[in-house]
Amino acid sequence: MKIALLLLLGITTLGMAHPPSKPRGRDIGIPFNGTPGKFNAITDVPGVLVGYTTRIEGQGVWKVGVGPIRTGVTVVMPTGKTAKNYPAGYFIFNGDGELTGIPPIHDYGIGFGPIGITNTNSVGIVRDAIGAWCYQKFATKNYLDFSFGLPIVGETWDGVLNDINGLHIQKEHVFSALDKAASGPIQEGNVGGGTGMVCYAFKGGTGTASRVITIGNKSYTVGVLVQANFGRRPDLLVAGMPVGQEITDLMPIINEKDGSIIAIVGTDVPLVSSQLNLVAKRVTMGIARTGTYGTNSSGDIFLAFSTQDVEPDPITKITTYKSIGKANLDVVFKATVEATEEAIINALVAAETMEGINNHKVYALPHDRLRDILKKYNRLQK
Amino acid sequence: MKIALLLLLGITTLGMAHPPSKPRGRDIGIPFNGTPGKFNAITDVPGVLVGYTTRIEGQGVWKVGVGPIRTGVTVVMPTGKTAKNYPAGYFIFNGDGELTGIPPIHDYGIGFGPIGITNTNSVGIVRDAIGAWCYQKFATKNYLDFSFGLPIVGETWDGVLNDINGLHIQKEHVFSALDKAASGPIQEGNVGGGTGMVCYAFKGGTGTASRVITIGNKSYTVGVLVQANFGRRPDLLVAGMPVGQEITDLMPIINEKDGSIIAIVGTDVPLVSSQLNLVAKRVTMGIARTGTYGTNSSGDIFLAFSTQDVEPDPITKITTYKSIGKANLDVVFKATVEATEEAIINALVAAETMEGINNHKVYALPHDRLRDILKKYNRLQK
Amino acid sequence: MKIALLLLLGITTLGMAHPPSKPRGRDIGIPFNGTPGKFNAITDVPGVLVGYTTRIEGQGVWKVGVGPIRTGVTVVMPTGKTAKNYPAGYFIFNGDGELTGIPPIHDYGIGFGPIGITNTNSVGIVRDAIGAWCYQKFATKNYLDFSFGLPIVGETWDGVLNDINGLHIQKEHVFSALDKAASGPIQEGNVGGGTGMVCYAFKGGTGTASRVITIGNKSYTVGVLVQANFGRRPDLLVAGMPVGQEITDLMPIINEKDGSIIAIVGTDVPLVSSQLNLVAKRVTMGIARTGTYGTNSSGDIFLAFSTQDVEPDPITKITTYKSIGKANLDVVFKATVEATEEAIINALVAAETMEGINNHKVYALPHDRLRDILKKYNRLQK
Amino acid sequence: MKIALLLLLGITTLGMAHPPSKPRGRDIGIPFNGTPGKFNAITDVPGVLVGYTTRIEGQGVWKVGVGPIRTGVTVVMPTGKTAKNYPAGYFIFNGDGELTGIPPIHDYGIGFGPIGITNTNSVGIVRDAIGAWCYQKFATKNYLDFSFGLPIVGETWDGVLNDINGLHIQKEHVFSALDKAASGPIQEGNVGGGTGMVCYAFKGGTGTASRVITIGNKSYTVGVLVQANFGRRPDLLVAGMPVGQEITDLMPIINEKDGSIIAIVGTDVPLVSSQLNLVAKRVTMGIARTGTYGTNSSGDIFLAFSTQDVEPDPITKITTYKSIGKANLDVVFKATVEATEEAIINALVAAETMEGINNHKVYALPHDRLRDILKKYNRLQK
Repeated sequence: MKIALLLLLGITTLGMAHPPSKPRGRDIGIPFNGTPGKFNAITDVPGVLVGYTTRIEGQGVWKVGVGPIRTGVTVVMPTGKTAKNYPAGYFIFNGDGELTGIPPIHDYGIGFGPIGITNTNSVGIVRDAIGAWCYQKFATKNYLDFSFGLPIVGETWDGVLNDINGLHIQKEHVFSALDKAASGPIQEGNVGGGTGMVCYAFKGGTGTASRVITIGNKSYTVGVLVQANFGRRPDLLVAGMPVGQEITDLMPIINEKDGSIIAIVGTDVPLVSSQLNLVAKRVTMGIARTGTYGTNSSGDIFLAFSTQDVEPDPITKITTYKSIGKANLDVVFKATVEATEEAIINALVAAETMEGINNHKVYALPHDRLRDILKKYNRLQK
Repeated sequence: MKIALLLLLGITTLGMAHPPSKPRGRDIGIPFNGTPGKFNAITDVPGVLVGYTTRIEGQGVWKVGVGPIRTGVTVVMPTGKTAKNYPAGYFIFNGDGELTGIPPIHDYGIGFGPIGITNTNSVGIVRDAIGAWCYQKFATKNYLDFSFGLPIVGETWDGVLNDINGLHIQKEHVFSALDKAASGPIQEGNVGGGTGMVCYAFKGGTGTASRVITIGNKSYTVGVLVQANFGRRPDLLVAGMPVGQEITDLMPIINEKDGSIIAIVGTDVPLVSSQLNLVAKRVTMGIARTGTYGTNSSGDIFLAFSTQDVEPDPITKITTYKSIGKANLDVVFKATVEATEEAIINALVAAETMEGINNHKVYALPHDRLRDILKKYNRLQK
Repeated sequence: MKIALLLLLGITTLGMAHPPSKPRGRDIGIPFNGTPGKFNAITDVPGVLVGYTTRIEGQGVWKVGVGPIRTGVTVVMPTGKTAKNYPAGYFIFNGDGELTGIPPIHDYGIGFGPIGITNTNSVGIVRDAIGAWCYQKFATKNYLDFSFGLPIVGETWDGVLNDINGLHIQKEHVFSALDKAASGPIQEGNVGGGTGMVCYAFKGGTGTASRVITIGNKSYTVGVLVQANFGRRPDLLVAGMPVGQEITDLMPIINEKDGSIIAIVGTDVPLVSSQLNLVAKRVTMGIARTGTYGTNSSGDIFLAFSTQDVEPDPITKITTYKSIGKANLDVVFKATVEATEEAIINALVAAETMEGINNHKVYALPHDRLRDILKKYNRLQK
Repeated sequence: MKIALLLLLGITTLGMAHPPSKPRGRDIGIPFNGTPGKFNAITDVPGVLVGYTTRIEGQGVWKVGVGPIRTGVTVVMPTGKTAKNYPAGYFIFNGDGELTGIPPIHDYGIGFGPIGITNTNSVGIVRDAIGAWCYQKFATKNYLDFSFGLPIVGETWDGVLNDINGLHIQKEHVFSALDKAASGPIQEGNVGGGTGMVCYAFKGGTGTASRVITIGNKSYTVGVLVQANFGRRPDLLVAGMPVGQEITDLMPIINEKDGSIIAIVGTDVPLVSSQLNLVAKRVTMGIARTGTYGTNSSGDIFLAFSTQDVEPDPITKITTYKSIGKANLDVVFKATVEATEEAIINALVAAETMEGINNHKVYALPHDRLRDILKKYNRLQK
């Protein structure tokens, strides 16, 4: 019904980041630990912006290059619309996917520019478009200009619903997501790169969550954004409950599809890249709590960044990094695991039933039945 | 003779691998997925042997070098008492620990000889003793003899209960565990390297489990053995239930101790080292299901091996590896996650309350209360 | 049509792979160890194809989006124009660069499809174009079609000579290189992705070399192709001689430019991915012999593949890999080091003086002076 | 003759660190780039101590457990005899060897305590002895005492000359090396862990070198210490000259022995662990300049540390790291490559002809013939 409306309008929603009015995981009584930030979103981390372009166009018979189109692009900007570097780390839990821009993070521990997430076959154009956008914003007149950078772009595969080989993401869709990226509350479910994704054989997509933590005498935020396109139905756990074994109907046409998840973890906790690699590894545990076991054909790749400033002193050439002592990493790890689990569940809760190519239909996780299951297992939060 | 002397002084159990008569996780109604092998143990994998030496001696006031002693050594022999190489992979989820023998596995994907697990401060002596034992068994007369190998030894830290700085593991304890290593059912809980370990602020230690899987037209086994010494009480989940938040008493003197877990995954599925690295990564997900988030000060290191033969042909110099096609790895991954979770719970279920140095007491997980909690959450298996 | 237009405006050479008539390193008396294959090229490895598109258009004043253009794209096809997977490994010696397609190689050790090399800012379009070409060639009618793959594309930065921010590589340039890729002798120097590159402050670019080796009772080939864009003049060694300290003139406008090198190693030696990772690491040693020390701002990324077949048996689901025994890897390592060094020197020897944007001029390594230096140091080969 | 004397005395030299009176690489006219520190040794880095125990005992027929003994232990103390942590990085170029203590460096980027180097079969005892020594020095009364640490110990294999399976390194040899460790000039060649090593089929062993560099407005030192036990004669290059092809006599009984190299890089340049990983990688290039190609059966493992202080602030829990900006890493990389090459050559130049088990004889690199070769190739430095 909402879908139908969108289809009639042939909507391409560029860069929207409006407040969600839909219930989220917590609203329907799923018990989660920890204290979320104001918007329970990665944008709770000061300075972090998120932008989307969503393309939901056409319906019915699949014709490569025409549609139906069910895809988009998500951008996360760690240092806003600036040319500042940021410390970054990553972890490849399952390598059947892509994340461009890995080598500089691996060796130099530094990220630059916006992070994109899209469908598998559009990684290249999103990568080049981010570079072109950065060049447009930040270029010097010098021919030794590196403002194009080595853009960071991840992906998951939306070919069950979307005409993925039709390559429907263009440069202007990326520019729009970047231009309109904003702080504040963000949409979840069928938006941005997550538009056409499937998770545990329910409609998946984009999800987010955050945690507020205290280290020493100061408060910090850890935020996670996921593009969730993974998991098989029987494995789905919600708050430890075997939801996937309770809801065995509402299956899409493909019930053994593998998939992927991209997770971005951002924080204002001062961390160096080796520590951010550890944070990225913890995402694995958040995912595990939703029941999957990391199937092949899945690209489960996680990026973590800290928003601390890393410019070297012009005289000494020395950068002064701040870094939480080892013993205090635990609250960051815990926040990462919790927010990852919640972001995935939020994606499932927010995503709405969608019809795609050849009328493939993927159903939303039904809120009422989820609530019933939580009740059955005495886990419904008041 | 020295051994006999030790036996007089206390309980030094050398290399015992007797059938357990105690209830295990499944026996008390915890729901686990999948089909275990005959003994639900790593020894279900054909050819794999396990041996223990357990030292439980002295009590009361702690005196470094004297005791009380609550420690031991565990050995896992992937290819029995032979000098055969085996394909191996590993994953360091949390690097605050030790696993010797990593570099050859990292680069050449090949393991050689028995794998040891002990307490942190005895890694060196166990390593050298395994090498000496291999030399004794396998040495040629040639001075270019490498039968000593590059032994693989992991550890967790038992200083809460054991006089760890007293260095109570000697060469003969290692030799005994190796000599008496056997197939069949194996002990769990306060045995071998796991003797003095603590897990989720309950008594932890050694645990094991296995899964029987089918690939193509053949049946295979995946077995896991863990030395579990990790986790904080409030985080403990059993079958997704917040057991750690339900049982808040029975706390040891140290309630915020961090810890570690070593996991060994063995299988007769023909896998190459790159695939075994993936299997080792999946252990993370099995651990995550028990509730931890991978704290600092923890060495969470996982080794995986396949028992396939890897000797090169003498003429062509070519080794013929067999390797499950990518799409069929999923059942191995799933078995690894499931058996890891169950092995940890088995360690908790088997371990008995122990008093160590200065009468520190660590309590066993009470079976009856665990059963009550499962019942409360409607998760008790009949 | 668009291509024809481009040809009218300048020299856009699509997919040419003609025999070089120019002298190569060996021809001018540089001493190299080992026995090269028939063409002393990566194409000596049976089944391996190479294709280029070279764009050299316009001259004089630099105008972004217009030119001058000095760039191109190189493709290497490990299994020819087929959809066969191949075992692959990689090594990031210096991570200030990009190689897409790393995660599947890291985790699954398998590559698929052609490998592209281009300029830094065109990685995305080359990646998507390779995917589109594969889809066009190999697509099934099934919507679960993954023939687009996760294309492997590397890069070096040609902004000293080329209007790199003008983004002059288009999809048709990539398609042309792919369509015309061939076996046999291949061009070196200012061709393909190497067109506008600079090496040790001389004109650099594309270079290749190969070695024939014997293992057991059989002969094999190891081939290397490099895109050489790295090194500072004073550091240049040729056959161990300090050539960079002997030729201090012929400097380009930028004498402290950093750079990068992409190296592709191919072989018909049966190797598994963990072994190919080791082969890729050895590239570092070949590069070191030319004098550099791996500066920052350099993306030194190496990919290695074996052409052995890796399809699983349909019944057992088992792939039978062949793999050279550990002790016989040495000849492969030696061949890789030697062929890498020679491929770099070949790139320097083949590249011709070029003028690019704003009339920046980068000089060819003068053959006569190189010969004089070899003579001075008693190293000239007859 | 000197050997004979030592043999008569059955000398076990504990912890000596006397000034060398022998010529070093530079003294005999080998051209090296860069400016060494005062002692051209790793001990030029302020605060770094080195200690040796050397065991040269017995001669003639080999009897396991008796001798002849040609081995020892080397210790490097990054922060002197203190319990301070230090940032550390590492690189495994060739994994057929051992370096204990890798996981904490991999994940937390922090080293603690002395670094040991010994023979392959004595790694365990050296590891435990370093731990015991640290416990003795630094232990608190608390049972949560981790002063034993996770000691870092590397090795190379000296079984050609030494009764390696006789296990002749004992705890007291390690303690002595630690107790007597000192700053100032250090011995090279047949000392410490390097005592019985073979390099390019000449006598190898311990070598060191350093470089003084300037970054921003300040002077720093990079020092390298190697235990060199690698390489085949025909491959030996000295300053780029094919010395191994010029000296084909003076071969030991085993002319195709593989081997290993451990390299320790220390510096007072403020670096974080990710940067130290990059420094460790550059060691590869220094080794490559001596001609090897990284054979199998070799453990080529490199550790790098910075002496900067890394204690967190007690209130904020934040550590302030200093880190050289990316662009200024190049001088550190260059110094590392140069000092590694020179340290290896210094080991070869310092090592004296040695007879070991069964009168195996390994010859020293003859200084006069080396000088002649340099002259022949017009490379002799005045």
